[in-house]
Amino acid sequence: MAENKVPKTTEDAVLVHSSTLPEYSVEVQGFDWSQGIDYEALLNSYATSGYQATNYGHSVTELNKMIAARNQIIVGDGDEVGVQGCTIFLGYTSNLVSSGLRETLRFLVQHKLVDCIVTTAGGVEEDFIKCLAPTLVGDFGLKGQYLRENGINRIGNLLVPNNNYCKFEDWVNPILDQLVEEQKKNSTTPDGERFVWTPSKIIAKLGETINDERSIYYWAWKNQIPVFSPALTDGSLGDMMFFHSYKNPGLIMDILGDLKALNTMAMRAKSSGMIILGGGIVKHHICNANLMRNGADYAVFVNTGQEFDGSDSGARPDEAVSWGKIKKDATPVKLYADATLVFPLLVAQTFAKSILK
Amino acid sequence: MAENKVPKTTEDAVLVHSSTLPEYSVEVQGFDWSQGIDYEALLNSYATSGYQATNYGHSVTELNKMIAARNQIIVGDGDEVGVQGCTIFLGYTSNLVSSGLRETLRFLVQHKLVDCIVTTAGGVEEDFIKCLAPTLVGDFGLKGQYLRENGINRIGNLLVPNNNYCKFEDWVNPILDQLVEEQKKNSTTPDGERFVWTPSKIIAKLGETINDERSIYYWAWKNQIPVFSPALTDGSLGDMMFFHSYKNPGLIMDILGDLKALNTMAMRAKSSGMIILGGGIVKHHICNANLMRNGADYAVFVNTGQEFDGSDSGARPDEAVSWGKIKKDATPVKLYADATLVFPLLVAQTFAKSILK
Amino acid sequence: MAENKVPKTTEDAVLVHSSTLPEYSVEVQGFDWSQGIDYEALLNSYATSGYQATNYGHSVTELNKMIAARNQIIVGDGDEVGVQGCTIFLGYTSNLVSSGLRETLRFLVQHKLVDCIVTTAGGVEEDFIKCLAPTLVGDFGLKGQYLRENGINRIGNLLVPNNNYCKFEDWVNPILDQLVEEQKKNSTTPDGERFVWTPSKIIAKLGETINDERSIYYWAWKNQIPVFSPALTDGSLGDMMFFHSYKNPGLIMDILGDLKALNTMAMRAKSSGMIILGGGIVKHHICNANLMRNGADYAVFVNTGQEFDGSDSGARPDEAVSWGKIKKDATPVKLYADATLVFPLLVAQTFAKSILK
Amino acid sequence: MAENKVPKTTEDAVLVHSSTLPEYSVEVQGFDWSQGIDYEALLNSYATSGYQATNYGHSVTELNKMIAARNQIIVGDGDEVGVQGCTIFLGYTSNLVSSGLRETLRFLVQHKLVDCIVTTAGGVEEDFIKCLAPTLVGDFGLKGQYLRENGINRIGNLLVPNNNYCKFEDWVNPILDQLVEEQKKNSTTPDGERFVWTPSKIIAKLGETINDERSIYYWAWKNQIPVFSPALTDGSLGDMMFFHSYKNPGLIMDILGDLKALNTMAMRAKSSGMIILGGGIVKHHICNANLMRNGADYAVFVNTGQEFDGSDSGARPDEAVSWGKIKKDATPVKLYADATLVFPLLVAQTFAKSILK
Repeated sequence: MAENKVPKTTEDAVLVHSSTLPEYSVEVQGFDWSQGIDYEALLNSYATSGYQATNYGHSVTELNKMIAARNQIIVGDGDEVGVQGCTIFLGYTSNLVSSGLRETLRFLVQHKLVDCIVTTAGGVEEDFIKCLAPTLVGDFGLKGQYLRENGINRIGNLLVPNNNYCKFEDWVNPILDQLVEEQKKNSTTPDGERFVWTPSKIIAKLGETINDERSIYYWAWKNQIPVFSPALTDGSLGDMMFFHSYKNPGLIMDILGDLKALNTMAMRAKSSGMIILGGGIVKHHICNANLMRNGADYAVFVNTGQEFDGSDSGARPDEAVSWGKIKKDATPVKLYADATLVFPLLVAQTFAKSILK
Repeated sequence: MAENKVPKTTEDAVLVHSSTLPEYSVEVQGFDWSQGIDYEALLNSYATSGYQATNYGHSVTELNKMIAARNQIIVGDGDEVGVQGCTIFLGYTSNLVSSGLRETLRFLVQHKLVDCIVTTAGGVEEDFIKCLAPTLVGDFGLKGQYLRENGINRIGNLLVPNNNYCKFEDWVNPILDQLVEEQKKNSTTPDGERFVWTPSKIIAKLGETINDERSIYYWAWKNQIPVFSPALTDGSLGDMMFFHSYKNPGLIMDILGDLKALNTMAMRAKSSGMIILGGGIVKHHICNANLMRNGADYAVFVNTGQEFDGSDSGARPDEAVSWGKIKKDATPVKLYADATLVFPLLVAQTFAKSILK
Repeated sequence: MAENKVPKTTEDAVLVHSSTLPEYSVEVQGFDWSQGIDYEALLNSYATSGYQATNYGHSVTELNKMIAARNQIIVGDGDEVGVQGCTIFLGYTSNLVSSGLRETLRFLVQHKLVDCIVTTAGGVEEDFIKCLAPTLVGDFGLKGQYLRENGINRIGNLLVPNNNYCKFEDWVNPILDQLVEEQKKNSTTPDGERFVWTPSKIIAKLGETINDERSIYYWAWKNQIPVFSPALTDGSLGDMMFFHSYKNPGLIMDILGDLKALNTMAMRAKSSGMIILGGGIVKHHICNANLMRNGADYAVFVNTGQEFDGSDSGARPDEAVSWGKIKKDATPVKLYADATLVFPLLVAQTFAKSILK
Repeated sequence: MAENKVPKTTEDAVLVHSSTLPEYSVEVQGFDWSQGIDYEALLNSYATSGYQATNYGHSVTELNKMIAARNQIIVGDGDEVGVQGCTIFLGYTSNLVSSGLRETLRFLVQHKLVDCIVTTAGGVEEDFIKCLAPTLVGDFGLKGQYLRENGINRIGNLLVPNNNYCKFEDWVNPILDQLVEEQKKNSTTPDGERFVWTPSKIIAKLGETINDERSIYYWAWKNQIPVFSPALTDGSLGDMMFFHSYKNPGLIMDILGDLKALNTMAMRAKSSGMIILGGGIVKHHICNANLMRNGADYAVFVNTGQEFDGSDSGARPDEAVSWGKIKKDATPVKLYADATLVFPLLVAQTFAKSILK
């Protein structure tokens, strides 16, 4: 080995020449601060900034595609006149309703910008509870023992005094009585089938009863946007139903009826878009419904899950493609972020812009 | 500033003396390789090795506490003779049944080492599907489009040919017919209530029917270990129920009945232990049931979720303490790991050791 | 157990009353969309939105505290007239210079808004390379084999044609010759010590030579902001120095000199603030220097690392408090996010607002 | 839409047939518990268990390939007689030396099972400090303020009394005096170059001086395994060098010399293997050296980093392939786990088995 020359193999390895220009020709370029503080321009620079900033930019594009497709209303004559060109399914986990994202979710529902919601039990009850008493900002590090002794429940860095759940019980109990009564009265439906409550019917009833414009589900009821929550027993609402069943037993909550309703929405959609914040059942349930139509046309996932443990929550959209839950030629995006950081901005640049000036 | 001396404030800052000895007096000490390869000794050294190795050691201790408490059988006379001293709730997500963990989960159920199971729809059906055809090891990077074109579904780095789901449909359809028939026949229960199927009753029926010793749910049925899955519609089983409802409508699947059964188990338990692999509904549902008893006595969580996004999946056990889902004086452990890496080892050092020699 | 009443222990557990109001009295409140799209107001709502949105809000507050402290210039007479009230240390990893964050980092340096930089070798060279040829936006999933065969290097979803590194060699080689020559010429310094190059001196030389207003390090040189990079050999610059040493040996790069310079900056600071994007050496090195002053007064960490594996990268700021690297009464913030998503917004709401209208 | 039949498009979507059998024909199969507790068999079942268990299995295979290649010693006559067939580079972060992994790392070095080490400053000093006083097991949640007031430093859930660092200073100061003296004495090397210390020379000196068989670096010195740490100033050792420079100035620590030594090892290796625990500089530096040989032949990465933020720490091995740091036809593995959970097991099944019975 000649000591005064770099070995040729090393030099060749380090100084490989680029034999072809990459077809990816967009140059990385961050925000140009010489134009002053312009949030719109700053956020637009994300698409060419790399990593999750790029995925933020892709998400804006994908959401705008959904919105444009949805605004294609079928005209002329025939059965489908007035049908929208895209059905948008929105899913989110319970903690996001506890957070300040609730106001953004309600905005979408209030203005009829989405067509179907899937959430968990907590994703339902936390909205109603906020109509009864506030949720507070605390700290991730507050000790559980201290909090329990003071009757304060922690959700990440948020706090919900347990009194709020007591108020919720007071509010929900008379409604549960009504549900039992209606079930008994309508033991069979007009077409001869047995009458049963489903989670979506109960959520609509709750939304109507709360009669509060701050509530997501008030607007969902008013705007006839169905809300599916197949495990509606898994939360405070379940606790209340459980307690109530001692005093006034007999309520049945069927989840097959809701499955049919959800799947049918997916099957009948002209095209479909999925916006899913968080993982678990809200992610899987929307995706599974879209298998019924051989895949969603558009998809934006926002979560912090990773694929390495094989969880559905952390899976990349390409895993859903293998199942036929997203179309093979779609351009789905997964944005790796806590939704509280990015979803309001995404909504501002897409849905809000489509209706606000 | 004198240039030939370290400034006193800096020296004081760097060379702070430890004024009191920390009460934490266990010395960090890894495995002593001079004793040769001894897996048991190696794993025992984890408790003093730091980070997640320490949490592994804590998990072994916590699981052994559950087992010891459970083995305290009430003797003498009275209503509760024969009742176990601890009720163990086991929760796991769907992907773990697709993985090789299924054999370890079945081992626990077959040998009656746990008392109650909560899982998702996929956590149920993937076990039966494996009785019909194998799941295969693939790769995380296989392209969704290619897989879909070849009818192969991906779960992380595992592959399930779609034919397996077709076989599942053939197997499950006659059972669904039976469910409808039994529902009609027993329109009311002996005590006058309407008869309805619940997820746990259906899972027991499926477990009985599969009649295969490789199945978790065969053993759960045989050993009368209830399996709760409140959103049982959210998976292939739901797809099959949905399809079946076109041909033979009317099946009702009530989730309130199961809620009562699960909560009652938690309330009646002498003490309770929770073993939860993964997040989402399986984690929340077991914890919520344990609120009914003012908190579980023992808890081991194994998952990869983080708390920073406020998700229940990623929450530390101390968050559950604030809710009364874990007792204030308990010593719960969260082990941050893909369960496939650690759960078989944990079982070997605890449950297996308690019955195998 | 009376079957028509909820057991008292259960009811007590679920309906615990909040005995004291939590002192954390800020109500969770998301953005009020009725005011139209107002990015400033939307971002201001983050502080009361929970999870990382709250941490975003805390970061804005902490950065504004640093800026306000820094703007307290010592007046009157005496040695310290003109000294700033706070020294701001900025650290960032290599990948962030490859990303569009480079423009934001340069903005801070160009406008003298920070006082000291710590970065890695890549964090230095990628800035110069971008002056020679563009970095491109690609995709996380591009195959390594394909890319290598075409001489294209991948950094996350970014691409750097290897030709860019060849151009970098052409540019840097004459400078390395100069370094060797100057070292030989100045074998001793005026005060009798041996002359040696340090990473910071070399980076300043490179910054001067590039003479390009797009470069972070051009402005660092011009504005006399030192840039420390203790492992400057660990990157393409190291490759070039290694190759160059065959042709023109003898260059020495001493890291002790830089350590003294960095520590002295921390010791002399009236107060100090740390802004650290990413983990590894850039995080540890700034924190360690601040131990010399018994802790930084202000700190904002932005990264995606987690504490569970005991890494310094993932440690919460409170770990640094135990070491005396952050003051005991400081209010440091860790924002869990990919910096590309949040840092431009943070800069807009703090540094940019302090100088732009 | 006929209501009594599943729409054909839906049925087709759900019941897609698998047109070809996947070439991935290994069946998922967990441990067979009927064989009793057999850790070796249990760990061998990981390869067919999915997710990170599969990656654990791949890691065992990859490590065994390295070992087999390394054991191919060149025979016959000629310059290279006795040269090993593979050079193994081992990298690890500081926190792993603080943990119980230190004993496993020392085992590898003591038995000459690896050829080159790259670590950080803390990865060096924590080993020596453990020879002076123990590191303790604590808790992740201990408060920084309390710890600082008591002079106790936290590393994840480990604790190091600050007294240990005071003892380290007492031990290291006379050695630093020697380094200065030797530097002065040998102002030029025999071949006329200036004599300078490099991190690897200093680490060898420290290893020789500690003269303690519990130390990794004692064995590294004894077995002539070089230890590279390009930013050796970034830790307590740096603090001590900084303090020492007030009393006895003049020490120079050159990092270019070490770069040449490291790169030359990679270039001369017959084949090369990389074992990298954690991220940051230890990962990048080993990979970069292997670019000099156009890529490592074998690689096992163990860390918890993710690729989504574009960090080198979290990058998949395939990113290193694009750079020529891993060979295009290699079979590198990334195991997503806290190394404390898996590395002792990996060593047991590979290196230990190769020399112990």
